[in-house]
Order: sequence, then C-alpha cells, then structure tokens
Amino acid sequence: MEKIVGVHLLVELYGCDPSLIADAEVFKEKIEKIAKEAELTVLKSYHHQFHPYGVTSLMLLAESHLFVHTWPEYNYIAADIFTCGDERKAYKALELMIKEFKAKDIKKIEIKRGIFKEECVKVSP
Amino acid sequence: MEKIVGVHLLVELYGCDPSLIADAEVFKEKIEKIAKEAELTVLKSYHHQFHPYGVTSLMLLAESHLFVHTWPEYNYIAADIFTCGDERKAYKALELMIKEFKAKDIKKIEIKRGIFKEECVKVSP
Repeated sequence: MEKIVGVHLLVELYGCDPSLIADAEVFKEKIEKIAKEAELTVLKSYHHQFHPYGVTSLMLLAESHLFVHTWPEYNYIAADIFTCGDERKAYKALELMIKEFKAKDIKKIEIKRGIFKEECVKVSP
Repeated sequence: MEKIVGVHLLVELYGCDPSLIADAEVFKEKIEKIAKEAELTVLKSYHHQFHPYGVTSLMLLAESHLFVHTWPEYNYIAADIFTCGDERKAYKALELMIKEFKAKDIKKIEIKRGIFKEECVKVSP
C-alpha cells in the first residue's frame, strides 16, 4: 500500500486575455475569488507587480499552496496548485482559472508528491 | 526553434534530519542562507509554522519562486524551485538543500515551463 502527502497540478494556460493578467490589482481580485470558490483555505497571500507588466501571486494554503506567474506579453500563465487532502479543490481551482482568464489552450501535469510505503509512515517525529 | 520561460525543479527529499525541518525559526535560517548562497534574489519571503510541527517557506524570487513544505514526521521535504534565466541557480539551491537537511534519498523532476515556438513570441503585450 502506498500513501502520498499531496497532489500537485502544474498548469500551463496559453492564449489568456492579457488585459486580465497584466495588473496585480485586477489579477488579485480574480485569483482570490477563484480560491474562495474552490474552497481553498488561504492563510497568507501576496501579489507582486512586475514592471512593465506581469504578476506573481503566491498563496499559502492550509491545504499547501497556489502559485501563479503571469506573462501578459505571451498571453500565458504558469500555475501550480499543490493540495494535501481533497484534490477536487485543486481541479475546481483549475476549472475556474481557465474560465476567468479565458485560456484557449491548456497543458496540465498531475504529480503525486511524497510517496511512501504505508508501513514506513510514522505518526509522530 | 523553441523558447521557454523557465525551468521548474520538483524535488522530493526523503530521509532528512527531522530536527532541522520541524521548527520555522530553525528552518528559516537555513533556507534563507541557501537562497543567498545560490544567488537567488529574494523579493519576499514568509515562513509558516504548522502545529504541532512542520514548516512551509514561500519565497518570491526575481527569478520566480522557491516553495518548500516540510513533514518532519516523515523526514520529508517537498521543494519547488522555479527559475527564469540561469537554471544553474536552481541546481545550486538543490545541492545545498540536500547537504543542509541531510537528505538520504532524492527524487527530482525537471519541467520546462511555458514552451513557445520562437516565431510566436511577441516582445510586448
């Protein structure tokens, strides 16, 4: 039997609307709404404006993390959604990102993180 | 010709010393030293203590991001190092993490993020 600590989605969103991903204030509002609708528990978030354009949003979650970098000059978003527990929340966040940023082409890799044999897992350090 | 926006290392460090990865204050000191030695430019960092143990460090870099989650109960670290530009910095950070946290078994995946045909790349939005 195997146990994993989490599921990590690496997502490439191509063909996004650049007007939605260039400015940190605009992006922040959308990505925080997405996290809320996906029922992710945000412990800390930070949104950084790169100049002349581009945003990085980092969100520390009780479930792990959500990290998004935007390149409006390429109409491109790189997103990482790492969740421990219910992976449906990660897929819900992805679905909402595709819709909100009007992505036309999506590439997704799902990686299982922290794979242990069940008998090797201790319950305390 | 292809162009990529960055290289992303997904790293699993097994068999780490749990005394080095359980406490946010101890971990913070080490991971910030690692970032500095790897010549990564930290724009923002945050270190979160989970209870009863476990740390998440998030570091926003000029080069992209470094995200580390620790599970001392499994002697395990999940690390993500995403760099735009010089990927040697990412490999240097990885090498230092293995050494500093005394990892005994390492799994690593390198993923190229944001792949474009050279002729499709615009220089402004």
